[in-house]
Amino acid sequence: MTHEVLQKKLVTAIEKKLADLIANQPQLSLLLSEAMHYSCLNGGKRIRPLLTIATGMMYNIPEEISVSVGCAIELIHCYSLIHDDLPAMDNDDLRRGKPTCHKKYNEAIAILAGDALQSLAFETLSSTDLNITQTAKLKIINQLAKSSGLSGMAGGQALDLINTGLAITQQQLQQMHIMKTGALINTSIISGYLANNSFDITLYQKLSDTATKLGLLFQVIDDIIDITSNTQILGKTAHKDLDNNKATYVTILGIEKSNQYANMLYSEIKNSLTKYTNADFLLYLIDLIYFRNK
Amino acid sequence: MTHEVLQKKLVTAIEKKLADLIANQPQLSLLLSEAMHYSCLNGGKRIRPLLTIATGMMYNIPEEISVSVGCAIELIHCYSLIHDDLPAMDNDDLRRGKPTCHKKYNEAIAILAGDALQSLAFETLSSTDLNITQTAKLKIINQLAKSSGLSGMAGGQALDLINTGLAITQQQLQQMHIMKTGALINTSIISGYLANNSFDITLYQKLSDTATKLGLLFQVIDDIIDITSNTQILGKTAHKDLDNNKATYVTILGIEKSNQYANMLYSEIKNSLTKYTNADFLLYLIDLIYFRNK
Repeated sequence: MTHEVLQKKLVTAIEKKLADLIANQPQLSLLLSEAMHYSCLNGGKRIRPLLTIATGMMYNIPEEISVSVGCAIELIHCYSLIHDDLPAMDNDDLRRGKPTCHKKYNEAIAILAGDALQSLAFETLSSTDLNITQTAKLKIINQLAKSSGLSGMAGGQALDLINTGLAITQQQLQQMHIMKTGALINTSIISGYLANNSFDITLYQKLSDTATKLGLLFQVIDDIIDITSNTQILGKTAHKDLDNNKATYVTILGIEKSNQYANMLYSEIKNSLTKYTNADFLLYLIDLIYFRNK
Repeated sequence: MTHEVLQKKLVTAIEKKLADLIANQPQLSLLLSEAMHYSCLNGGKRIRPLLTIATGMMYNIPEEISVSVGCAIELIHCYSLIHDDLPAMDNDDLRRGKPTCHKKYNEAIAILAGDALQSLAFETLSSTDLNITQTAKLKIINQLAKSSGLSGMAGGQALDLINTGLAITQQQLQQMHIMKTGALINTSIISGYLANNSFDITLYQKLSDTATKLGLLFQVIDDIIDITSNTQILGKTAHKDLDNNKATYVTILGIEKSNQYANMLYSEIKNSLTKYTNADFLLYLIDLIYFRNK
């Protein structure tokens, strides 16, 4: 099977699992359930669960397990997109070419859909249906909670809002992105390792360093695309960062140095991962992330 | 020690723990951290963690443990208040006599503070610092996630918004309240049992039935107080439900039948709990809930 075919097959499995997780809940509040489904099943690239599954392959994690763990992370990602799009936050009308959750429903339903998707992520990871050790479950839950909260994604989004319109340094930008985007990308990879029943702090730390670099690479490429692409290709409003007066790698470093920085991160990640066995699908995904701006 | 003194001592322990849980996070986003602290430490009655601790007493759970578990539930409660107060939801300016989170900070920070408090709840319960079995942790996480999400609190809040202005039956009102308020009250009690290392489905179910009745009692009393009290005493806007055209037990049953219903629930809960040993503090809390409108 080629990597492209495998990717397609896995995206189908991820989307089936996401739909099942929402549909298997007691359907007492149909509109909320519909809003959750609408915002989760909207043609996303599923890069986070794919990273979990790909890392899981390096540790012989059965696909059924890494799909479930990856979907819990994707639920957190989906909730964050709903809340980020709200008028009080980034105020965006389009997401992947379709109306955002608050545009399709209303703000209240969008807030609650995000809230309930976060709960569903932790329900999924704590379920007896998930066939990994209790130690592994609790490590993943703890990692995901940390990367979602004050010191991770939510904290990074708060810094992003506070920094808007301010002149910030590359270091401040980096810190914000490590929290806002990087923490969850890191958890996506690390969870593929944690689902494994053994734990070694040195292995964990090494993989985590590489995962942090991937989080940064992801963001630098995102910033470059925001400048060089248009709304039709992106499926969301382009030049948004520029219009919103937000500092990005491109505004701080310029396009050329941003490209150089991305190239350096890409090389370091590749070098680190070639030392692992069965890392070819993960390397393929990293190429996808890196080359999406070419 | 009288129950009043014990209650005061426990509320102090709960508030210290809540403050510690927020302060012990990496302080990378100070404004968000401050907003979380502001909304958690605002003089709440802490009825949920008190219920967890009181139930824990019936199963000899060390206070340190039941305080931690109770605080995780209180974090979920605090996040729900922040989001419920938002302009797109109940649009309330006052909470416990002080400006609501979005009034004190802004809407974006209020949304994120709620989001990060939810993550912190699950981080707390999955922490290796919490000294209960892994089975107990996972059961509590699963119970809390279910009671917070689509089939619990968030789903109930969505039903509440959808039902506003509509003529609904007592059964529909009951279903909405069992989800919106009842689920978390139920989890507060049940978690005091689940922190215990053994598990018996019959005992669980019996306690859960009583806890569900307490959730209903809590709401009926709330509805009665909303009509009979004023803003100064409540510390939040009074007659809010009436002003917002929301169905309540009082609008459906009238004051007299609402009082009769509360009285029936109260008797059934008392009868059920007198069969337990060391249930006196829990019974005291139930009196507090019942008699707060007298």
